[in-house]
Amino acid sequence: MKVLIVHAHYEAKSFNAALKDLAVKTLSEAGHEVQVSDLYAMNWNPVASQADFAAPTNPDYCVYALEQRKGYESGSIAPDIQAEIAKVDWCDLLIFNFPVFWFSVPAILKGWIDRVFVSGHFYGGKRFYDQGGMAGKKAMLSLSLGGQPHMFGADAIHGEMDTLLRPVMRGALAYCGFTVLPPYVAYHVPYVTPEARQAMLDDYRERLLHLDDLTPIDFPRLGDFDDRLYPKKSNEEKT
Amino acid sequence: MKVLIVHAHYEAKSFNAALKDLAVKTLSEAGHEVQVSDLYAMNWNPVASQADFAAPTNPDYCVYALEQRKGYESGSIAPDIQAEIAKVDWCDLLIFNFPVFWFSVPAILKGWIDRVFVSGHFYGGKRFYDQGGMAGKKAMLSLSLGGQPHMFGADAIHGEMDTLLRPVMRGALAYCGFTVLPPYVAYHVPYVTPEARQAMLDDYRERLLHLDDLTPIDFPRLGDFDDRLYPKKSNEEKT
Repeated sequence: MKVLIVHAHYEAKSFNAALKDLAVKTLSEAGHEVQVSDLYAMNWNPVASQADFAAPTNPDYCVYALEQRKGYESGSIAPDIQAEIAKVDWCDLLIFNFPVFWFSVPAILKGWIDRVFVSGHFYGGKRFYDQGGMAGKKAMLSLSLGGQPHMFGADAIHGEMDTLLRPVMRGALAYCGFTVLPPYVAYHVPYVTPEARQAMLDDYRERLLHLDDLTPIDFPRLGDFDDRLYPKKSNEEKT
Repeated sequence: MKVLIVHAHYEAKSFNAALKDLAVKTLSEAGHEVQVSDLYAMNWNPVASQADFAAPTNPDYCVYALEQRKGYESGSIAPDIQAEIAKVDWCDLLIFNFPVFWFSVPAILKGWIDRVFVSGHFYGGKRFYDQGGMAGKKAMLSLSLGGQPHMFGADAIHGEMDTLLRPVMRGALAYCGFTVLPPYVAYHVPYVTPEARQAMLDDYRERLLHLDDLTPIDFPRLGDFDDRLYPKKSNEEKT
């Protein structure tokens, strides 16, 4: 298996970076090929803008998704974007490894998605969700945060973790066709004992060695919706 | 009323920018004071990192939230962050005006939140949700997207809009104490007729003139949770 880890922590000595290092080691030793995009180390530019297009089709009015499609086709889209697209094309499994910032991904990772998941190649027209451009590949989140498990859930103070992660898991990964595995969540990271820290690393290692045992998260299938994207069932109910 | 609009669109001639311009005009004419942080025009840096701290308390190991707190207290946090904090302190209403990128805010706006909502001042210890540092201020999202209303909802292909917006509305704004008004959502923007476009602008203008009529969104209150942040009700049920 070919694995791309997109890592988004500013501190190389952090627990989050240890998760990334552990994944590289564990997966490599298990015979997989691994590439890492270490966004802070790469000084990744997260800002989607006109500057991404050397040969814009309309220099006077930028529609980002439109220019993405044309720029990707012509090879004139920014080289840093092209390099990341090539890595995603190469991989069978994409891992986002990040600390939770504001119940979401850090801006540097959001901007990797904004710029790399280009229209036309990752999605476009009726090619999204199970029909998305990345269908056949898997994706997984590996995240760390300060909160504790009891703070997440239907009646918990912050609500359900899966809901908080929906924009990235459903709106970005599943939308582009990735089969999304359940997230690995390391809770309470700044406050845990060395033993608990090691236990989390051991847990993550076990998961990485048994990824095939994970049941992917269920997301919409285009076949359940009509041509205008109304749910088919509700149309049947109407008639 | 003092209003800060944080605007995050790359194209000055876009419909999204027209929403921002309309808000400036409408609110100013109604007697309010308005400031705009136009993030693309400001060339805003969205990457939270060690570079934000001129005098880090620990140069060898960065814990971003900890350095934020100390850097804000000592005035050594990056000047661009200080300037934005001053604007938020000044305002009574904060508006995020943005196009939806991947069911979420663009990276440049995510990074404004990541860097500006500093620990200690915006939240910290048991000061969050209704006890957050920005309690007494209001906030509202104004967003544009390509999807249509029927694509959002409980059984709709993309799920519920409020759920997709939860990380920013609940996880960032409500968490810091802002009273969050319902979002203004402009659907199907790239595809609508000039008449429909004008109707959306008219709708937004009406809303801006009657903000007091809006019922804020309900979010958790710390009083409903115990000292360890378990729901009080569930504890009562246990006994």
